Amino acid sequence: MVLEVLASPKPGNVDRCHDYPETRLEHFIVSSLAARLPLEAAEGRRVSLGPLIEEAVRATSCHSGGNTHFGAFLLLVPLVYGAGVEGACRAIEESTVEDAVAFYRAFALTRVRVNETDELDVNDPGAIDLLRRRGMTLVDVMAHSAERDMVAREWTNGFALCSLGARVLREDPQPRTAVRRLFLSLLATELDTFIIKKHGPELAEETRVRARSVLEGHQPVASLDDWCIKHDVNPGSLADIMIGAIYLALEDGWAWDS
Amino acid sequence: MVLEVLASPKPGNVDRCHDYPETRLEHFIVSSLAARLPLEAAEGRRVSLGPLIEEAVRATSCHSGGNTHFGAFLLLVPLVYGAGVEGACRAIEESTVEDAVAFYRAFALTRVRVNETDELDVNDPGAIDLLRRRGMTLVDVMAHSAERDMVAREWTNGFALCSLGARVLREDPQPRTAVRRLFLSLLATELDTFIIKKHGPELAEETRVRARSVLEGHQPVASLDDWCIKHDVNPGSLADIMIGAIYLALEDGWAWDS
Repeated sequence: MVLEVLASPKPGNVDRCHDYPETRLEHFIVSSLAARLPLEAAEGRRVSLGPLIEEAVRATSCHSGGNTHFGAFLLLVPLVYGAGVEGACRAIEESTVEDAVAFYRAFALTRVRVNETDELDVNDPGAIDLLRRRGMTLVDVMAHSAERDMVAREWTNGFALCSLGARVLREDPQPRTAVRRLFLSLLATELDTFIIKKHGPELAEETRVRARSVLEGHQPVASLDDWCIKHDVNPGSLADIMIGAIYLALEDGWAWDS
Repeated sequence: MVLEVLASPKPGNVDRCHDYPETRLEHFIVSSLAARLPLEAAEGRRVSLGPLIEEAVRATSCHSGGNTHFGAFLLLVPLVYGAGVEGACRAIEESTVEDAVAFYRAFALTRVRVNETDELDVNDPGAIDLLRRRGMTLVDVMAHSAERDMVAREWTNGFALCSLGARVLREDPQPRTAVRRLFLSLLATELDTFIIKKHGPELAEETRVRARSVLEGHQPVASLDDWCIKHDVNPGSLADIMIGAIYLALEDGWAWDS
């Protein structure tokens, strides 16, 4: 989590050079410190995924910077619980309706942007009853959101993007700056679903095109950063994917500091 | 620890805008994460100060960035152990020869600049025998270094600078930027003993004069930063004092994020 947020420059996201007005680098670092106990609990596997996610969100709501790592926990909790992708996939298959209910409670602790036209709207108190009536487990909930949420999609495709990202990090010959290169590369190839939810698919596509142009050397990264700030474009879901990728790389012995 | 290192600009020290060649912001943050267990042990008070300092230094040697928080632990460990200045003063008065020996072992784990002409040179294996022969406790060792080391001096004067700093932080009407203002103010009034050890008293005094000039609005902070970098001036002992001050302010309920 700290390696993700400290990488710079990361167009549109909080990094060493940029804060959001309400959410600053300090909040991301304090949130990372506060995540230690819940992530150790995930490693201990004595509680199931839903309550673990709820606890992680609760523990990291200790600051006034708003949501910092909600999406990251949706990836980190199963990955840490399973000590990698294989174990994570086994764990999420065993998820229950009560895990889904706990996940909805975690949502209620924060103010994360969701698709408000959905009948499973997390802000609707009736949604939890609906989950129970339909017998939807946490993996069902994720599958329900997979099309429009790239973090949920990782639950349904074996953490494909996180795994790809981890491979790219491990193969990068310059580990100290690998995180920012992976971020730019993902930005140039994937549509960030957080941008889509906030601004629609056109702006998400334009972000991708502009990132590709930076990657190909046609414009400096600083101009993309300026453009993102001007248009309130922050690729928050890709930041979550990055955290999953960094965890998997570290789990595989990646020497981030060499 | 994270609030200290994330404050910017801090002339001469690692901050959001500057790294040292071998020690980067990432190392300070990773060191802060790694300090959690030893600092919790200090809070638990089941081990005495020397072994606690040794354990903190050992735990935060997990990265390749060299010394990050050695001096900070000399302040934080007693302050956390005592839950404030009064308790810290009681704890250090009870320190033993074995605490001093553990402190020397902690030194051996790192490469901290010391006065090499001293007969109690921490790099001399005979120094530990000398400690034992003379029956020097940890507070005696600190008193021995107090004149030329402002961190050790805090042990002998009731954590005077840390307490002053904490008061300044709590009274600052803009908490979010208070840390950088306190740092500049200390830099303009105190001679940093780390600068003295590295470059002699003249350069330390010149740093203080230049900081005062910034404080009085005669030159921009960026020019002091450039000057520090050009002359390899890093006020590392004041950074340690800052961490003690921030801890005391937080312990007193300082709302850093308001």
